[in-house]
Amino acid sequence: MSMSGGRGGRERLVVIGGDAAGMSAASQARRMRGPDELEIVAFERGHFSSFSACGIPYWVGGDVPERDRLIARTPEEHRARDIDLRMRTEVTEIDVAGARVRARGVDSGDESWVSYDKLVIATGARPIRPDMPGADAPGVHGVQTLDDGQALLDSLAHTRGRRAVVVGAGYIGVEMAEALIHRGFQVTVVNRGKEPMSPLDPDMGRLVHRAMEGLGITMVNDAEVTKLLTGQDGRVRAVATEDAEYPADIVVFGIGVRPETALARAAGLPLGAHGGLLTDLAMRVRGHENIWAGGDCVEVLNLVSGQEQYVPLGTHANKHGQVIGSNAGGGYATFPGVVGTAVSKVCDLEIARTGLREKDAHRVGLQFETVTIESTSRAGYYPGASPMTVKMLAERRTGRLLGVQIVGREGAAKRVDIAAVALTAQMTVEQMTALDLGYAPPFSPVWDPVLVAARKATAKVRAR
Amino acid sequence: MSMSGGRGGRERLVVIGGDAAGMSAASQARRMRGPDELEIVAFERGHFSSFSACGIPYWVGGDVPERDRLIARTPEEHRARDIDLRMRTEVTEIDVAGARVRARGVDSGDESWVSYDKLVIATGARPIRPDMPGADAPGVHGVQTLDDGQALLDSLAHTRGRRAVVVGAGYIGVEMAEALIHRGFQVTVVNRGKEPMSPLDPDMGRLVHRAMEGLGITMVNDAEVTKLLTGQDGRVRAVATEDAEYPADIVVFGIGVRPETALARAAGLPLGAHGGLLTDLAMRVRGHENIWAGGDCVEVLNLVSGQEQYVPLGTHANKHGQVIGSNAGGGYATFPGVVGTAVSKVCDLEIARTGLREKDAHRVGLQFETVTIESTSRAGYYPGASPMTVKMLAERRTGRLLGVQIVGREGAAKRVDIAAVALTAQMTVEQMTALDLGYAPPFSPVWDPVLVAARKATAKVRAR
Repeated sequence: MSMSGGRGGRERLVVIGGDAAGMSAASQARRMRGPDELEIVAFERGHFSSFSACGIPYWVGGDVPERDRLIARTPEEHRARDIDLRMRTEVTEIDVAGARVRARGVDSGDESWVSYDKLVIATGARPIRPDMPGADAPGVHGVQTLDDGQALLDSLAHTRGRRAVVVGAGYIGVEMAEALIHRGFQVTVVNRGKEPMSPLDPDMGRLVHRAMEGLGITMVNDAEVTKLLTGQDGRVRAVATEDAEYPADIVVFGIGVRPETALARAAGLPLGAHGGLLTDLAMRVRGHENIWAGGDCVEVLNLVSGQEQYVPLGTHANKHGQVIGSNAGGGYATFPGVVGTAVSKVCDLEIARTGLREKDAHRVGLQFETVTIESTSRAGYYPGASPMTVKMLAERRTGRLLGVQIVGREGAAKRVDIAAVALTAQMTVEQMTALDLGYAPPFSPVWDPVLVAARKATAKVRAR
Repeated sequence: MSMSGGRGGRERLVVIGGDAAGMSAASQARRMRGPDELEIVAFERGHFSSFSACGIPYWVGGDVPERDRLIARTPEEHRARDIDLRMRTEVTEIDVAGARVRARGVDSGDESWVSYDKLVIATGARPIRPDMPGADAPGVHGVQTLDDGQALLDSLAHTRGRRAVVVGAGYIGVEMAEALIHRGFQVTVVNRGKEPMSPLDPDMGRLVHRAMEGLGITMVNDAEVTKLLTGQDGRVRAVATEDAEYPADIVVFGIGVRPETALARAAGLPLGAHGGLLTDLAMRVRGHENIWAGGDCVEVLNLVSGQEQYVPLGTHANKHGQVIGSNAGGGYATFPGVVGTAVSKVCDLEIARTGLREKDAHRVGLQFETVTIESTSRAGYYPGASPMTVKMLAERRTGRLLGVQIVGREGAAKRVDIAAVALTAQMTVEQMTALDLGYAPPFSPVWDPVLVAARKATAKVRAR
């Protein structure tokens, strides 16, 4: 084990994790301070830097033709910007008192301590894989990394059978189900919840359910997977629940991720109720002046519920990195929190949510009214107008907007941004009824569906 | 002349104008109060009620197959809701002191006075038609009413020539140019401004110019029409500017509208600098407790500039009607103002704006920074990602958002709603950089184009 040091007066920024949050932080810090002022060393244990995990389902489904399209910036590109990115190098310990990290070559096994003046923890997430028989059998896949995606594609290419089971019906589960349909598989989705797409309330998830059935996907709700059955060759052959068995040549797990915070925990850094690192508004780890954390390993403040939440999304990771890099580079920026916006699609059905679902609002003690309206994507008389369903939650008495869910065809998903901004500004649904939104027959009815929902919510709040 | 009266204790609400604002007001008032409490009499001088003027270009272009699709509610449907809608009946005088209006049958010429307890003025707009030789010749058309649209369609069907000239390159001019291309005409657009689409700054209008040329439209900028030349048959044969003549078998004027406020002016009601009625926040005509006005005959407060503005758009007219009907029905609602949002399209190029253009900001004394960025509609690696240009204006020092213009393909237009809500909430561009907008590869790059613009604007404001 060696000890690197001797930096000739330059500060050293060490980054753990070479993906969205870590490399955004490194890049932004580099923009703020040149290599003569700040040395930047980044460690990534995998084979790839700065890739779009959100793009994996589209690569697996064939919409994105090749893996490398998902890589936003290669290690060489980072190095060309004077970022010393060390691939296949894992950090195995953070010594906070000594201001150093221990790094180990994944292939070589060589270890060394690297000291830091400033540290960024961007260790990401690890997929949840239930501890059950057969969970590691050949034919069972996750889709967290590009390596996972490649392994799945190889498996799809070599499997003779055509039956796939997806476990989980959140964003990844639903997107993977569609991807597997595109690859010519018969797909069954086994889901613990009452309806697919648990980021929505079940009444809205029901609309997604119908669309999935329309694609030929078999949807099994209210079902907990108990074990994976394997054949004599050791490969997976079925997924078992308490009630049934679903034959499977391929199984894909998409039941979510947890913050990868084992290193942080061992170092005594503060973790929240969801296991993620806790930071302040400048993305500094609480109580630590020179340590920042961001991306899928941190918890974020939900501005609507007022509580910390775990929201592992690339869009937040990029913003965290930007904020961390500005601060670590001697500037100033903050990440105030999220409102819980997410969008997805199944075939041409667009799915969007922001703010709180009914159960979120109950959990934090809010009383509220809900409305659900049907409208159209364009003026009713304009060709291509398609139905759109908008659900809206508003606080009782105050009328403050609490959440919006939208399911529909073209133009449904990004309409949720109207509500995302309104939530950030803490608008009431009555204030929303006066919003000056874009109107022309090809783009909206004269009352935008979000305004129709806001009007109905206003009437309901007023009536109580 | 007769005098109607004797209402058995019921109040009478009189509405002048049977289109969006007037009939929305009547409908909402009826929802609030039944016919035993409130009598509603509405006068419309034309042949149609509650039609979508915004839809006329799409009807003329053939996207909307028939006229009646543009009628939201027929006179019979209004009457079935106990609204006494009198078609082809013109109000010729408002007697404010006597609380009565004089109505005249357009066809019969019969006149009578009708008294009111509450009055709604929704007289709409009249198209600007320059006072020049040939302006009334056969073959010269406007597109304000359904009758105008029908006359134009008849003219298109019977004209042997295939050359059309559109005068004006605002929303209507550009939409009509495309409609005429769809009908197989060679189209020249003669435009007074430097670039088409004057609701945008010229640098953004330039992008629309290119798209119009791509459709085969001949665009003539910086050109003022001086006269229309007619042939021996009296029909229009060319449009003349100072420099040139443009042969024309059909001429369509789309150079905007003015508030139709002759009645209001004669009655001594308050008008603003743009000739529109001035109202308070409840849409009451200033100084008049029992008179409301809304739609294309009023001026509205621009919440960004702090000044009254004339914005004749159906979306505002419907909101005005809603607010007026609530108040006239004994409830309470307000219309706080507009931020100047508008969207349109030329072929598949979407065009959007909100807030102030550079010249608007100059006019009201604001100092500002501008940025223009290029991004894409979807993640760069996702199929169908197309370029999008976003221009953003932010106030110097404070960084307050002042305006956004967007030109691009799918998803460009309604993205402006993000900025419309942010303007309403008086956000700074730096606050906007933290907005939790929907992200998934089919819908947006990981940094939404609006966020990219906000980041660049933030950097520019900070640097000054």
